[in-house]
Amino acid sequence: MGLLVLVTGGAGFVGSHTLVELLEAGHRVVVVDNCCNSARGQEAGQLPPALARVCTITGKTITAFHMVSLLDRDALAQVFAQHKIDVVIHFAALKAVGESVEKPLAYYSNNVTGTLTLLEVMNEAGVKRLVYSSSATVYGVPQYLPTDEQHPTGVGITNPYGHTKHICEQILRDLAATDKEWRVVLLRYFNPVGAHESGMIGEDPKGTPNNLLPYIAQVAVGKLDELLVYGGDYNTPDGTGVRDYIHVMDLASGHVAALDKLNSEDFQGAVAYNLGTGAGVSVLEMITAFTRASQKKIPYRVVGRREGDVATMVGSCVLAQQQLGWRASRDLHQMCVDAWCWQSQNPDGYA
Amino acid sequence: MGLLVLVTGGAGFVGSHTLVELLEAGHRVVVVDNCCNSARGQEAGQLPPALARVCTITGKTITAFHMVSLLDRDALAQVFAQHKIDVVIHFAALKAVGESVEKPLAYYSNNVTGTLTLLEVMNEAGVKRLVYSSSATVYGVPQYLPTDEQHPTGVGITNPYGHTKHICEQILRDLAATDKEWRVVLLRYFNPVGAHESGMIGEDPKGTPNNLLPYIAQVAVGKLDELLVYGGDYNTPDGTGVRDYIHVMDLASGHVAALDKLNSEDFQGAVAYNLGTGAGVSVLEMITAFTRASQKKIPYRVVGRREGDVATMVGSCVLAQQQLGWRASRDLHQMCVDAWCWQSQNPDGYA
Repeated sequence: MGLLVLVTGGAGFVGSHTLVELLEAGHRVVVVDNCCNSARGQEAGQLPPALARVCTITGKTITAFHMVSLLDRDALAQVFAQHKIDVVIHFAALKAVGESVEKPLAYYSNNVTGTLTLLEVMNEAGVKRLVYSSSATVYGVPQYLPTDEQHPTGVGITNPYGHTKHICEQILRDLAATDKEWRVVLLRYFNPVGAHESGMIGEDPKGTPNNLLPYIAQVAVGKLDELLVYGGDYNTPDGTGVRDYIHVMDLASGHVAALDKLNSEDFQGAVAYNLGTGAGVSVLEMITAFTRASQKKIPYRVVGRREGDVATMVGSCVLAQQQLGWRASRDLHQMCVDAWCWQSQNPDGYA
Repeated sequence: MGLLVLVTGGAGFVGSHTLVELLEAGHRVVVVDNCCNSARGQEAGQLPPALARVCTITGKTITAFHMVSLLDRDALAQVFAQHKIDVVIHFAALKAVGESVEKPLAYYSNNVTGTLTLLEVMNEAGVKRLVYSSSATVYGVPQYLPTDEQHPTGVGITNPYGHTKHICEQILRDLAATDKEWRVVLLRYFNPVGAHESGMIGEDPKGTPNNLLPYIAQVAVGKLDELLVYGGDYNTPDGTGVRDYIHVMDLASGHVAALDKLNSEDFQGAVAYNLGTGAGVSVLEMITAFTRASQKKIPYRVVGRREGDVATMVGSCVLAQQQLGWRASRDLHQMCVDAWCWQSQNPDGYA
């Protein structure tokens, strides 16, 4: 018998892919999303397209969708009153690093106050199990590589987005430290890319993409002229930045594994797990892999470094393997094939 | 011509003493306080006793008092609509370290969401000058002594209260970095003690005091039997913890100096200043000084260390002297005399 899982931000990129894995694992899902960064249903009462496609992919239904902001305490409490939620997976957040520098209050308010409101409402409803969507950005400038979960957090974070992730982790640790009924898994994502193999759901950024892969994909499909590569003089094999890219479906299955862990008898407190592959891929390697997968030329130009970027960020994912029985299984080629499948079938995203 | 200063938490300990200095410097004040930790007026429309006494001490009036929570966005916006505020001094916060461990959500919500809401309302009202009530607790475990403003912050903070102060500093720095109209002074208090020399206003903690001096004072006045000294085996001259105590009236005048700085032509961004004396005083030295000032015996007993306490915390206050033209002028004896004057005249605080 599955759980009833409340998924905040379920219409977003990682959220929608996780819904697929949750439904296929036999869980039921209630989705809360304000759709501020994701496509909405065309008519009132209609599911957002990402959610409708999740249903098509899985052949299952979404128990309920509530277009609610986490800042709307009363509406959120209503959701908990309507459904007997077992556990929450909390994706909802603003996530554009550059935008967070321009609009710090919006980021702190949506991400920190939004999370606090969710936790207060959960407390009142007696729902005290949470999987939190964190990020490798909490490690700041890495002091050693690959970074494991023992690496210091909060030092050298250069943007409000990163601060909000670190702050929410701290809040959850403090909460679990004082109230033993709380069980929390903090999932620190490295760089999620790719799409569901059907090509029906994928990453649908508004405006010019902030992340590498959607950017490459939009160049490949002809929506953008060329790719700007930020920095060619890093201390890496080819001079471009190295990251730990992880297929979003691997990430999604990591959430199902985290749910199992959270509900195991001996689990307690707040525990962080890296979700990555442990392998570093440079920007140029990614361009090569995407060219191979798409059979498209990717014009690119190397320009100056972007402030706040580090040369290399790669995670150790041994703990997740040991304790969650999870590891990423899809390789770089698969990431590019699936990203291209989504992008070529949906050149304008869900629009 | 003075400024119209909005003082949040103006009915509290540091807030009320700062009101005296603001009024005497020729500023006008609007006070916002939800009185969750301070005595209220006995009848509707009556000023809280701390504010009434501020008026008596100064012979001046408080322009307006609003019993409003910072979490009540609409009510707060109303305050800004009613008054043409020039600058805000933001004291309002929960401040008990131990309680913050027990009730982390209440602390994050009141202190962080409260500050965010205030900043958003200020932004909308076009009021972009703020003095923030921070704390030496942001330095965590000191890496060197005396800690100056360049000391790393956020590392080794052991309780949610401390985290909230560090988070709010970060929010304010991020805000000032992106919007050049924002001017922010972060005042990092060491250990405020004492009271106004009149003995009419002072520290009025609810329940058993968390801070040393009110605790000593309540023992001296006979409300508590003995003082528990947490830790006698620290690496300090007499084995008890050493802190940088500062007279609350010195702290208050530091806020007036900060206002002048904030309004000087060349000020920009967010700048932090320590407010302390630069001198360390041990618990046993404080007991001795208080005994001398009060002529009362202070029975005490040394017990185990309290988790999260450091041996010594002393600040360098050179920057405030150089840039604010401010330095603490009242010595330890004065702190004890004034604290005792308040306590002996008001054994039950404002009640």
